[in-house]
Amino acid sequence: MPANAPRVKLERTAEFGATIITYDRLTENREEIALGIAEQKGATYVHAFGDPWVIEGQGSAGIEIAAQMQSQAGRPPSRIIACCGGGGLTAGLALACPEAAVVPVEPEGWDDICRSLESGEIQDVGTSPPTTACDALQTFATYPINFAVLKARCHEWARASEEEIRAAQRFAFANLRLVLEPGGAAALAAVLSGKVEVDDSTAVLLTGGNTDAASFAKVLGDG
Amino acid sequence: MPANAPRVKLERTAEFGATIITYDRLTENREEIALGIAEQKGATYVHAFGDPWVIEGQGSAGIEIAAQMQSQAGRPPSRIIACCGGGGLTAGLALACPEAAVVPVEPEGWDDICRSLESGEIQDVGTSPPTTACDALQTFATYPINFAVLKARCHEWARASEEEIRAAQRFAFANLRLVLEPGGAAALAAVLSGKVEVDDSTAVLLTGGNTDAASFAKVLGDG
Repeated sequence: MPANAPRVKLERTAEFGATIITYDRLTENREEIALGIAEQKGATYVHAFGDPWVIEGQGSAGIEIAAQMQSQAGRPPSRIIACCGGGGLTAGLALACPEAAVVPVEPEGWDDICRSLESGEIQDVGTSPPTTACDALQTFATYPINFAVLKARCHEWARASEEEIRAAQRFAFANLRLVLEPGGAAALAAVLSGKVEVDDSTAVLLTGGNTDAASFAKVLGDG
Repeated sequence: MPANAPRVKLERTAEFGATIITYDRLTENREEIALGIAEQKGATYVHAFGDPWVIEGQGSAGIEIAAQMQSQAGRPPSRIIACCGGGGLTAGLALACPEAAVVPVEPEGWDDICRSLESGEIQDVGTSPPTTACDALQTFATYPINFAVLKARCHEWARASEEEIRAAQRFAFANLRLVLEPGGAAALAAVLSGKVEVDDSTAVLLTGGNTDAASFAKVLGDG
């Protein structure tokens, strides 16, 4: 795990019984480290997003959304707005909901998928991406398996600023009574800032609340 | 509304178009004020908890709980733990779920219903109740219509301390990703502190999240 991951993520992972090996996000390569451990231990390496079963698993959120919207609103989603790191979730949603427009949202500067969709081929975030509170969305470049799906299915995408993301966290606190971590608020941030449009059957994914109390208190205090 | 109500409650009520008249909780009587306004304006006075339709409306939470537990757990609740101010919610739950044990939880010192259940007749909180963060649960005494139900149906009750309530707010933040106001966390506080027992079909009601950002940040910082 990244050495600078939120303490709550490190602690909760340890509570599940994991042995945690930390690395430096900017100077070390997590895939090399993980592949080395897998080889040494005879373990199976599972990529965080560039894996068909991970994509399929994340896509199950789309199946649940479609079923719930069908039963409660009488129709499946026409649009799905979701945060995007490596593209596992968004690719899974696109496969699970073939009739819906899927709109990936990345933090500003960590926009490898936006850049890739704009150029038509996989781009990385460059050598000096900015700091972001979205620890869960810091991916340097997507994988071909994800990009093949996204390139075929995504015709819109957006970048959310750090301030827009904090505002979305405060909105969820004040209006939804939900605790969102920064990355989990990125899709909502793009909606609230008007960067992506919603219609009356749009699903907006709020995808995580693993934030430290001190960090969350600071976000609330900024409002 | 109480002059010292959380700002968010005052603001949200105003957003609905209300004309808000504030009063001092400790020196003024809200019922007299409301009855005077009703007479002056020809309006209908609705008591906050001592009203059969209010009780019935709050009891609808019990009907929803029973339906959801039946469909998801295969049985209705055996126990329901709920916060208690004037006894509208708890009386409603008791009527809606006649097979369930209903356990009211009050803040320490604002325990008129606990005292009333212990003595067998309606008691008030006395002339100098302590300060509590639970603005929603500050009732001086219950009403006969509520007490008649609670006396017949409640065989357990509990008082939660201010610190137990803050701890429950932090628990909900960290584990449920929910924003709870103090009063909304009272039932959970009684459970987490071991003051009331739970079995495998107990429902614990978390009943509100109207808390100001600064207050919530302070609770998080106390942990």
